[in-house]
Amino acid sequence: MTIVPERLDAVPFPTSDEIFDAHRGGKLSTGLTAPLRDARDLAIAYTPGVADVSRAIAADPALAARYTWTNRLVAVVSDGTAVLGLGDIGPRAALPVMEGKSALFKSFAELDSIPIVLDTTDVDEIVETLVRLRPSFGAVNLEDVSAPRCFELEARLIEALDCPVMHDDQHGTAIVLLAALRGACAVAGRDLSGLRTVISGAGAAGVACAKILLAAGARDVVVLDSRGVLDAGRGGVKAELAAVTNPRGITGGIAEALAGADVFVGLSSAKLPEELLATMAPGSMVFALSNPDPEVHPEVAARHASIVATGRSDFPNQINNVLAFPGVFRGALDAGARRITERMKLAAAEAIFSVASDDLAADRIVPSPFDPRVAPAVAAAVAAAAAVE
Amino acid sequence: MTIVPERLDAVPFPTSDEIFDAHRGGKLSTGLTAPLRDARDLAIAYTPGVADVSRAIAADPALAARYTWTNRLVAVVSDGTAVLGLGDIGPRAALPVMEGKSALFKSFAELDSIPIVLDTTDVDEIVETLVRLRPSFGAVNLEDVSAPRCFELEARLIEALDCPVMHDDQHGTAIVLLAALRGACAVAGRDLSGLRTVISGAGAAGVACAKILLAAGARDVVVLDSRGVLDAGRGGVKAELAAVTNPRGITGGIAEALAGADVFVGLSSAKLPEELLATMAPGSMVFALSNPDPEVHPEVAARHASIVATGRSDFPNQINNVLAFPGVFRGALDAGARRITERMKLAAAEAIFSVASDDLAADRIVPSPFDPRVAPAVAAAVAAAAAVE
Repeated sequence: MTIVPERLDAVPFPTSDEIFDAHRGGKLSTGLTAPLRDARDLAIAYTPGVADVSRAIAADPALAARYTWTNRLVAVVSDGTAVLGLGDIGPRAALPVMEGKSALFKSFAELDSIPIVLDTTDVDEIVETLVRLRPSFGAVNLEDVSAPRCFELEARLIEALDCPVMHDDQHGTAIVLLAALRGACAVAGRDLSGLRTVISGAGAAGVACAKILLAAGARDVVVLDSRGVLDAGRGGVKAELAAVTNPRGITGGIAEALAGADVFVGLSSAKLPEELLATMAPGSMVFALSNPDPEVHPEVAARHASIVATGRSDFPNQINNVLAFPGVFRGALDAGARRITERMKLAAAEAIFSVASDDLAADRIVPSPFDPRVAPAVAAAVAAAAAVE
Repeated sequence: MTIVPERLDAVPFPTSDEIFDAHRGGKLSTGLTAPLRDARDLAIAYTPGVADVSRAIAADPALAARYTWTNRLVAVVSDGTAVLGLGDIGPRAALPVMEGKSALFKSFAELDSIPIVLDTTDVDEIVETLVRLRPSFGAVNLEDVSAPRCFELEARLIEALDCPVMHDDQHGTAIVLLAALRGACAVAGRDLSGLRTVISGAGAAGVACAKILLAAGARDVVVLDSRGVLDAGRGGVKAELAAVTNPRGITGGIAEALAGADVFVGLSSAKLPEELLATMAPGSMVFALSNPDPEVHPEVAARHASIVATGRSDFPNQINNVLAFPGVFRGALDAGARRITERMKLAAAEAIFSVASDDLAADRIVPSPFDPRVAPAVAAAVAAAAAVE
């Protein structure tokens, strides 16, 4: 892998002043789809005209999707318990991140979006609250909710709400990782089913990455948490994952797991020493996704690996969720889907890979986050997958 | 009073097709305060830059008002139990009305606004839900909640939330009625304290109108519900109102109340027969505010009254809440007020009257809803009143 020098400096890190200035007054606004210029406009959009529309929806609630903004409205919901790398900083401090997420939905998929930050961390209360809010939106993007609560919360919401729900920290990351690994395989002439993959981290992203790789045909995935390779002695989701991973029965820690492995996926921020990297199989692939500090510096990783990816915009092969979630929600809403299924997620990954396929190289295994072809391709693929559910 | 013929036809009623076409896809959208053009914009508005802002708010939650959109964001909240004249049509059918209301906040006061329609009508649950949502917005406009629940709900929310809360069907109407009555008094050379006023209707608007008139100096106000003049035998809010109104101890119905009265305020949709109008004092004033069908047709009312007002845009003297609520919330948010007090409501009414004072006449007792001077004047007056609380 070659790191292209000009790309390293392409994004000079903004100063603190620039960042705070850009946040003054927040990053979102609401607007009208048509202006209210005079009494006639008012009589259409508000009383007395709006009564006709309300009466029609009262008679047939399904018409709310046609005559309100909900069918293109994503609620970005967080309780502020796992915000970026900052941890449990609460809903008020989480709000700027959620505003940013809403801005991405608009910019990348022309979806409207409102941040909903909740002053409770109780799963029952969050579910209850969103059930009560349900008529106000068309889909729920769960964001920055701590593990393992996020697994129960997402599952409960999917059951309770008749609309698309996705925890992006899980599935957005998983979809883009799968797309990138497909790209890496194409560059390296490898097949996913023949790879030995090690995932370091069994939080929201680690669990979802393991699951989607297995669903896509991977057969040898080993997952570690801070105590080492997952085994049946762990509780909950980790025990479930232990049952379907680690086919060779590896015991121990990262050293045991990594020896002879083809793929490293870092999602834990635990540093990866260079001497362990050196024990991987020839032609290895390293996805050091902790942000802003990858598990191993990409230049160090490149001494041993044929392909290196990070979460950073200043290195090649950026694994950025924005490649997935705007198109996934757009496709699900366009299709009128009530759920985001495994098939839809796999279709999203395949669509991202397809866009990258036009111009694949060791430092171009995924498209740029700003590639305008991605979101429409993902949306179309997800909508098509929804149609055959 | 003269009804100006050309104004009668100024707003040809929109056709049903026009109304439904204008509602397709809803009336609101979200937008960005600054575009996301490249990786640098992304690094400022989202990761990694946004982490600086989140960290700052975590250290000092008061900074959320400065660095998020909440300080200019009004939640328009309804459970859909008393929507326009349509009654309890539920949250989905209420949503087009709430979208319209949000559109008015934007158009008239440059406030952002999101509709929140709730799938519960339980007061405890609504309060609980908004407490959990509190970090997501800066103020609450309660809308179309049925009486008498609306009185308890508003009071409970004012206690539970540290931000401006106002039930517009109560206080928006009351503020504009008071402004209009001040205008009518100025035209007629009368004083509010010397008027006998009859309010037909003891729902949300009737109760609030009675209270604000008393607070503004009216001394003889008689309120009726469908059973006649309120007395102490009624429960709850009506009994409270009976205790402070009806100083002459009138008993009976609208006929007894209206004989010799100076002002009729219709807020019940009960029809007012012309023969009863004829029993009012000379130079009477009629506010027939039921919409779209006033309690008495304004042309009939004009045979007996010196000043006639309705809720309709196709007659002079339109009593429209939009004269009040955009400026009230804008002023409260600008001032950082935690409550909307009686003093702020009175200041709002006085500001509307001041704008009308420039050009008062029997058919111009309030400004046009589209008069661009109104919302800024109301906002400034409300903010000034908030500052001396």
